[in-house]
Amino acid sequence: MGVLSQKINIDRLDKQLKELANIGFDPDKGRTRLPYTNEERNAVNCVKEYMIEAGLEVYFDQFGNLFGRLEGSNPSEPVVMTGSHIDTVINGGAYDGTVGTLSAIESLRIINENKMPHTHTLVIGVFVSEEAARFGGGTLGSKAFVGDYTRADLDRLKDRNGVSLAQALEQWGFDPNKLDTVKGDPNKIKCFVELHIEQSINLETNKIPIGVVDQIAAPTNLRLYIKGKPGHAGATPMNLRRDAFMAAAEIALAIEMIANTIGKETVGTVGEVFVQPNAINVIPGEVILGIDIRDVTSERKDLALKQLKSTIDAIKEKRKVDIVIDEIARQEPVKTADQIVNTIRETCKELEITFMNVTSGAYHDALNMARITDIGMIFVPSVDGISHAPGEFTTIEDIHRGAQVLSETLLKLAK
Amino acid sequence: MGVLSQKINIDRLDKQLKELANIGFDPDKGRTRLPYTNEERNAVNCVKEYMIEAGLEVYFDQFGNLFGRLEGSNPSEPVVMTGSHIDTVINGGAYDGTVGTLSAIESLRIINENKMPHTHTLVIGVFVSEEAARFGGGTLGSKAFVGDYTRADLDRLKDRNGVSLAQALEQWGFDPNKLDTVKGDPNKIKCFVELHIEQSINLETNKIPIGVVDQIAAPTNLRLYIKGKPGHAGATPMNLRRDAFMAAAEIALAIEMIANTIGKETVGTVGEVFVQPNAINVIPGEVILGIDIRDVTSERKDLALKQLKSTIDAIKEKRKVDIVIDEIARQEPVKTADQIVNTIRETCKELEITFMNVTSGAYHDALNMARITDIGMIFVPSVDGISHAPGEFTTIEDIHRGAQVLSETLLKLAK
Repeated sequence: MGVLSQKINIDRLDKQLKELANIGFDPDKGRTRLPYTNEERNAVNCVKEYMIEAGLEVYFDQFGNLFGRLEGSNPSEPVVMTGSHIDTVINGGAYDGTVGTLSAIESLRIINENKMPHTHTLVIGVFVSEEAARFGGGTLGSKAFVGDYTRADLDRLKDRNGVSLAQALEQWGFDPNKLDTVKGDPNKIKCFVELHIEQSINLETNKIPIGVVDQIAAPTNLRLYIKGKPGHAGATPMNLRRDAFMAAAEIALAIEMIANTIGKETVGTVGEVFVQPNAINVIPGEVILGIDIRDVTSERKDLALKQLKSTIDAIKEKRKVDIVIDEIARQEPVKTADQIVNTIRETCKELEITFMNVTSGAYHDALNMARITDIGMIFVPSVDGISHAPGEFTTIEDIHRGAQVLSETLLKLAK
Repeated sequence: MGVLSQKINIDRLDKQLKELANIGFDPDKGRTRLPYTNEERNAVNCVKEYMIEAGLEVYFDQFGNLFGRLEGSNPSEPVVMTGSHIDTVINGGAYDGTVGTLSAIESLRIINENKMPHTHTLVIGVFVSEEAARFGGGTLGSKAFVGDYTRADLDRLKDRNGVSLAQALEQWGFDPNKLDTVKGDPNKIKCFVELHIEQSINLETNKIPIGVVDQIAAPTNLRLYIKGKPGHAGATPMNLRRDAFMAAAEIALAIEMIANTIGKETVGTVGEVFVQPNAINVIPGEVILGIDIRDVTSERKDLALKQLKSTIDAIKEKRKVDIVIDEIARQEPVKTADQIVNTIRETCKELEITFMNVTSGAYHDALNMARITDIGMIFVPSVDGISHAPGEFTTIEDIHRGAQVLSETLLKLAK
């Protein structure tokens, strides 16, 4: 074994990673490739070229998801899927999504070039809008692929400038009215395996190069609209204030406290804060908070949300502010499939690469794919756990090992 | 007595207030007239016309302060000054500053038209940039007038777009290199009396139309630059976070707690909040907070600042974040002059208008003027205490009473 994985071209992978890293790049801020923007489109076109060079059949669906296909000896068998994404958060890193995407292309390329026999067709999915940076919710492309959206959702979901998802699709030449054609047929998909950076420090801390994911945490995203009363920062006595930002601060610390007490995999974040009028001598009248609560079990996540909502009620009353809660996204945590997990482990043993079980605190397109097929995930280390930031880094040696494990795993699953 | 004050033209005052209220006005957001912008300039030109109609000699200094002068019978006597400002906060009201400015013009107009004898020359100062909305600190015009600034300060003070105060002055045809000429000569000024809306609820609560200010609170403004570590909102466990916004939230609540415990005139506000990268799924790496702490005694304000700084130190350590504190403005509280206070009280009695002593939580140009001359302030009620907001309101009847008291007081002082 390991004959195939030894063919992984580490220099090519490294070169492609660097090319992608330069798209949408600002030396001061990292890279920003929001979905359905020129930056993301440039990255998609770049990846499409790599797929064509790899000898794959390339096509888009009407949601903007990009696919690369390598036909198996029996095209009537369900396909083995892999893939990830190439969009980024605002001021993001060079590895989140791109490592899985480029390793998938490299894997299919060497399977193709070395004419490795496989019964099942292999398909790479590069899912659009995995990050939540533009439309609030994340993993839009894979959600569409598993049939999550109605046509009305495409009008409802809007970015900060009021551009709807449907409008964004149309701008890029896709037809929002053909949403039905985007949905993948579960009967025609055998499984989905995604390689990704860990975005945490378990692998690094334990000096283990490969993580085999056993469960994926999932978020609920809330937007809170807090309305107090603006007023003069000098003339309004403390006891007459209805300060929207003090309410926001109290909610933020409550989220932290709830996450700290519920469980070690429970996390809560206030990533988005908008204050009105945002002047140093005016008591804030309005605040918008964007909140992300995650856990690996729905029960614990629901408990966190329940505690948060009762805290918000108490703060509303105490501070005499209005608070409207908008649940903008909700996903359920999943477990990976034993069969895939075992195949990845077996591959690691054969390649003599050490591995450990890990939990994914971040969600991925695999989270949605789990609803229509068996899934597995392979993690490679993130230096210092940094992610969603310009400092995100994974060594090319670790990426190489990840691509080796991915290529052999895919070949086994497609045999 | 009261012969003069009966000449106050309530309809003219009302009309002028409404005209000014429409400059820089947005029906959804109130009015915004930031210093050295077209909106403020339009308001200044409007007020200049009113002064000319009133028969005043009109001139600007090289800082953009506008003056209107009515010569007394002995021009070698020190002048009696009055005035206020016409710039606004972002999304402000129609009464803050404008009531005092227009009442001053009306007062001098009727003194002039009715040929009321006065030894001392009367001068109205319409001070530029009283609000802190553009350059961080407030009362810029009166600070320049009392000689607070060096030429270097005009380069140092910048707005959010990086435009310096010196550049703003030049854009409006003023010469920042003639800053020395702006300074008023204390020997040539007898006193300064400012009429203003209360911006609080003491007068309204007590159903008293006139407040005689005994002391003026003064702010210290800080900008805090909090630097934590950005990271993935799902993959970063709570115990590994260095969340800049959680630190900011804790600081905000500490400010509230400190203000609540030190004294009933102590107030603390976090009006400005900027979060980076401000995305729902990214832990905030950087936060900027704009803070305003005020009190009527320097001792209590210093105590609040001391407590705040030691809290910030503890939060820095606990949360492993960096926090840089920039003290962008600091003013000392003042007491009004007994002689002026007594003149205002005497006038109220003669006019049979009830009055009470009040403290000013807001600072005013009078706060700076106190450093070169005796000052007094007359307050009129603010409905519901609302200020620095579109809902700011004072009845025209209350403004009328305020203008009556102002005109008689000025005439007495200039006799």
